[in-house]
Amino acid sequence: MTDEPTQRLRLDLAYDGTKFAGWARQPSLRTVQGVLEEALATVFQRDGEPPLLTVAGRTDAGVHATGQVAHLDLGPRQLERLSKPHGGRPAPEPAAALARRLNGIAGLSSDVVVRSATFAAPGFDARFSPIWRRYEYRIADAAADRNPLHRLFTTWYPSKLDVDAMNTAARELLGLHDWAAYCRPREGATTIRELQDFRWSRGTDGVITAYLQADAFCHSMVRALVGAGVAIGEGRLSSGRMLGIREEAQRTSEFKVMPAQGLALVEVGYPPDEELEARASQTRARRGDEQVDRPPHLT
Amino acid sequence: MTDEPTQRLRLDLAYDGTKFAGWARQPSLRTVQGVLEEALATVFQRDGEPPLLTVAGRTDAGVHATGQVAHLDLGPRQLERLSKPHGGRPAPEPAAALARRLNGIAGLSSDVVVRSATFAAPGFDARFSPIWRRYEYRIADAAADRNPLHRLFTTWYPSKLDVDAMNTAARELLGLHDWAAYCRPREGATTIRELQDFRWSRGTDGVITAYLQADAFCHSMVRALVGAGVAIGEGRLSSGRMLGIREEAQRTSEFKVMPAQGLALVEVGYPPDEELEARASQTRARRGDEQVDRPPHLT
Repeated sequence: MTDEPTQRLRLDLAYDGTKFAGWARQPSLRTVQGVLEEALATVFQRDGEPPLLTVAGRTDAGVHATGQVAHLDLGPRQLERLSKPHGGRPAPEPAAALARRLNGIAGLSSDVVVRSATFAAPGFDARFSPIWRRYEYRIADAAADRNPLHRLFTTWYPSKLDVDAMNTAARELLGLHDWAAYCRPREGATTIRELQDFRWSRGTDGVITAYLQADAFCHSMVRALVGAGVAIGEGRLSSGRMLGIREEAQRTSEFKVMPAQGLALVEVGYPPDEELEARASQTRARRGDEQVDRPPHLT
Repeated sequence: MTDEPTQRLRLDLAYDGTKFAGWARQPSLRTVQGVLEEALATVFQRDGEPPLLTVAGRTDAGVHATGQVAHLDLGPRQLERLSKPHGGRPAPEPAAALARRLNGIAGLSSDVVVRSATFAAPGFDARFSPIWRRYEYRIADAAADRNPLHRLFTTWYPSKLDVDAMNTAARELLGLHDWAAYCRPREGATTIRELQDFRWSRGTDGVITAYLQADAFCHSMVRALVGAGVAIGEGRLSSGRMLGIREEAQRTSEFKVMPAQGLALVEVGYPPDEELEARASQTRARRGDEQVDRPPHLT
């Protein structure tokens, strides 16, 4: 498409991560990006280079999403394709038409859904514009009802957990810090993040949900924080130790990183439209040391 | 076990019906009863005749349950087996021990869970003592968020449904009536039932849930009522027609029976302990024309 002007679309996505090897395209593995980019290639097979996706949160294998966001850029021929009337009906709105076509290809009742497609405001970048990401982690411990219908997105845990103790430890952690002890290391990537929210709550069915929000999460950070919280809740880790581990900034075997099954990316927060561009530039500058063609894992 | 005295246990069960050919044991098909009775045979393999299950709601293939109830009778040797101490621990409470053992065999993270096992009050009969059954049916229509994580227990429907119209039609149906038009016929079985509750509600995620309660449901009655409601909500059926169809007491092609996927048995209501026996006798007498060894489908 070289120098043709493009228009950016925002996709809001939900998926069951169970049968995906994560978000990121990988040769010969089924990934969410792979499935969606294949569907895009089908929609635009006669319209030049197929569009590629840029994502807010590069989820790991098995991790779910109900509020994932991605963007893609479409050229004039591709936009024209979406605006073509079908069977005598009036010309459709092109963004809505894209969501319809992708869902038609991915197949109704399948494990990935395009919840909506919209034209993005100027400066919008799914990966660099966010001001926060929110994840939830569900645990059915020994005190919870175990609902087999929820097992795809709930981790079953054999002991009873003390939610009050977990909340006390979680509160102490908030703020802008170095999370190296809770991140899987990646060369050249910063481990400084702002943890904006970390709470635990037991629902009426007894299932415990962890709510976590940060500007961004480094690789495996949510599952590590949840694992340390579970160790506190089980009494295996003393109450001040979650903070102590972070301050030592060293990986430790005192807790286990929790399985992907209970984890979902539930929402990505973007600033008001007029701040999208500035926010993206700021993020790009701060993460300048990371390779741009290899976005960080954000789970 | 011939003349040995037995004790009755109540099992509270939950299952994902997706990969079961329904509740009832069938040769060479995977059924909930089959899986559980095999597990019971394993637990009591050296203790005589393995116990059999009697159930409150004989769910069809693909139908889920979060609040299913069953009973079984155990002889002295079987109770003794459950009370045996394991590895130096004190002797366990036998009912809780049975739940633990069955879940161990069925396997944690699997699609059937024994939520609890308890000694039943005198006169308790899982099938004949209930005073009501409650089912829920979930539909994600065109106005709802489609969450792939909930697809196992939600039916996706391509049009938008008018919940107010569906509620108006549902209210008119309540009471003790002949439901022949909404039942799959079974020889010798009554189709007179008391529909005690039938409501529709759209949740914050846009998903519509139907709540239905009756003393008992005849075969495929819930899915037929939901199908007729959907036809009303889509404007394919006029508002008084749901009642009209019932009064004609004839099967009709004006609506479709909905798929099993969205349906779950959520609760079974029993009377106070002192009325269990009387209620069971009363139900047995009323359904006397039905074969006792072939309990009715209750979905």
